[in-house]
Amino acid sequence: MTTGAFPEPVTSLIEAFSGLPGIGPKTASRLTYFLLRAPDEQAQGLATALIELKSRTTFCEACYNITEWQPCPICRDGHRDRETICVVENPLDVLAVEKTGVYHGVYHVLHGAISPIEGIGPDNLKIGPLLERVRLNPVKEIIVATNPTLEGEATAMYLQKQLAGLTRVSRLARGLPVGGDLEYVDEITLVRALEGRSEM
Amino acid sequence: MTTGAFPEPVTSLIEAFSGLPGIGPKTASRLTYFLLRAPDEQAQGLATALIELKSRTTFCEACYNITEWQPCPICRDGHRDRETICVVENPLDVLAVEKTGVYHGVYHVLHGAISPIEGIGPDNLKIGPLLERVRLNPVKEIIVATNPTLEGEATAMYLQKQLAGLTRVSRLARGLPVGGDLEYVDEITLVRALEGRSEM
Repeated sequence: MTTGAFPEPVTSLIEAFSGLPGIGPKTASRLTYFLLRAPDEQAQGLATALIELKSRTTFCEACYNITEWQPCPICRDGHRDRETICVVENPLDVLAVEKTGVYHGVYHVLHGAISPIEGIGPDNLKIGPLLERVRLNPVKEIIVATNPTLEGEATAMYLQKQLAGLTRVSRLARGLPVGGDLEYVDEITLVRALEGRSEM
Repeated sequence: MTTGAFPEPVTSLIEAFSGLPGIGPKTASRLTYFLLRAPDEQAQGLATALIELKSRTTFCEACYNITEWQPCPICRDGHRDRETICVVENPLDVLAVEKTGVYHGVYHVLHGAISPIEGIGPDNLKIGPLLERVRLNPVKEIIVATNPTLEGEATAMYLQKQLAGLTRVSRLARGLPVGGDLEYVDEITLVRALEGRSEM
């Protein structure tokens, strides 16, 4: 979309937006045109938020979640059960579990999942710090909440092997999503739902 | 998505992204998480582009296209035919016409189209400046290139009435899109294609 018809600041912003995942040149142009007509404060607010994201946040030294303080508010919270660790792939997953309101333990964010195709091995994730954390402060249970994908499963298997003997390791249940329709559920999910069936 | 699980700078950026058209809270969270892991330069580059978009650009006093200079490079270009004006709804349309490489006249950007539903009348668009521009410097032809939508058509009709007697007014052809399939073309487009048929 870079042509002489647009001034450099416009093409620069279109290119910057295009560098974000899921945003192509057409969407980038529309966002830019929207901001051109929006009040100055909106572009300024977005710019400030972008700068503060990097300058004001860091990763918690204990659980690797995003935080403004060390340790993060969850790790610091005296009401949380520090002997239960929920292991997730990324900070958005922490948010998802927190929103349920039923989990009162702490977290450990791996920042990804094992993926040989993408060249991501255990050493590229925060698995070492998790093992060290558990060795230093023994816990009752580790709930592996990686995604129900090939990469998430591989990561769960690896964690299970590494943590064997150190603590109890559990995995989120696989089964029918609530509100789903049996007719449209994929075979693998149905197999897992049958395997994991419970007495009524 | 604003919860205590995320620090304020993160929720601020999620909210700022959510304020953009077509970006919901889920996408905003993903973009934010992407930038958290991306090199500092990427968030910084986007922030700078946002600030420069507003500080370094303005609208051309002649044609109302986005520009860094007064008048814009197209209006200033001595090789362009200043007696032909292509009237478009927004700056992205200028880009679309420029990309064809076959148009050598100048432009006039209306910044929208007449839409009674959205409360946009002729006075909210750059129609007054267009009439004044044509009265001061008579032109040979005005090509109305508003969108083939209800609003675009209404705007074209209005312009035609206002410009009647002042200059020749033409409208982009409506017909079959190149590469399209007759079978899938809507009725109105087919009617327009029949009406506008040409000798072979």
